[in-house]
Amino acid sequence: MLLIRPALAQDVLLLRTMIHEFAEFEHDRTMATDESLLREGFGANPMFRLLLAESDGEPAGYALFFDCYASFQGPGIYLEDIYVRPQFRGTRIGRALCAQVAAIARRENSFGIIFTVMDWNRPAIEFYQRLGATFLNDWKVVCLRGNTLEGLAKEATS
Amino acid sequence: MLLIRPALAQDVLLLRTMIHEFAEFEHDRTMATDESLLREGFGANPMFRLLLAESDGEPAGYALFFDCYASFQGPGIYLEDIYVRPQFRGTRIGRALCAQVAAIARRENSFGIIFTVMDWNRPAIEFYQRLGATFLNDWKVVCLRGNTLEGLAKEATS
Repeated sequence: MLLIRPALAQDVLLLRTMIHEFAEFEHDRTMATDESLLREGFGANPMFRLLLAESDGEPAGYALFFDCYASFQGPGIYLEDIYVRPQFRGTRIGRALCAQVAAIARRENSFGIIFTVMDWNRPAIEFYQRLGATFLNDWKVVCLRGNTLEGLAKEATS
Repeated sequence: MLLIRPALAQDVLLLRTMIHEFAEFEHDRTMATDESLLREGFGANPMFRLLLAESDGEPAGYALFFDCYASFQGPGIYLEDIYVRPQFRGTRIGRALCAQVAAIARRENSFGIIFTVMDWNRPAIEFYQRLGATFLNDWKVVCLRGNTLEGLAKEATS
């Protein structure tokens, strides 16, 4: 049986484990620790919300999201991660997680759910196509970080 | 003289005007009204932060941003809009707005600033290149909205 439930502070070790699995899958690395996740997700002002999927009591995946704001459309949900562990893929857990986030978005009168996918992650792209998602193909994602961010910050007048 | 300052509730009419200018520039439309912006940006729990640029007392542009969260990197800033009115372009106001947001990101220990740009907006792309921004070319932006969101929400189990 599939259960999807909000994560609690005591799920932090499991969450950290799955975030590290996901980072490895994306050929990336993560600085997430039990301490950072506990502080940033389960304190007085949580920076994200998290749903856990359990299949017959086994942790199978998670959805991590936060509130975003589109100046043209108003409040929305930014879905940072949908992750399903390899042994549970193809069992509609990803779809069930997305459906749960969609229900939250509808309940909160969000304009929609925004997220990103790597262009080489063909199974994920096909999964989102099956959901009927809209691909914003003329949007490019850009980042200011590291030394560039630091240098630019020094130009600020106050 | 250029002044960059946080927007106040009484700037809402000006903000709405510039958001509508920006939407027109992007061949898009916006549902932003004075009431929605006041409620969503200037209440007890603001959904965004806003900086206004004034050039010799004239409203010249704005930056609208909110807190985001990257599961691999922690807290960051999502820069929804940088807008400079046509008559003020090429006067480094966009750069000054970005620098101010960068200073806030640094002060708050953000990993960085994330934003998007339309692939046809060559002047904006060249502007971000001059800033030294990193283009995440293997990311695709995806959206769930409208009937798709509604249909998916109905599949949710609770």
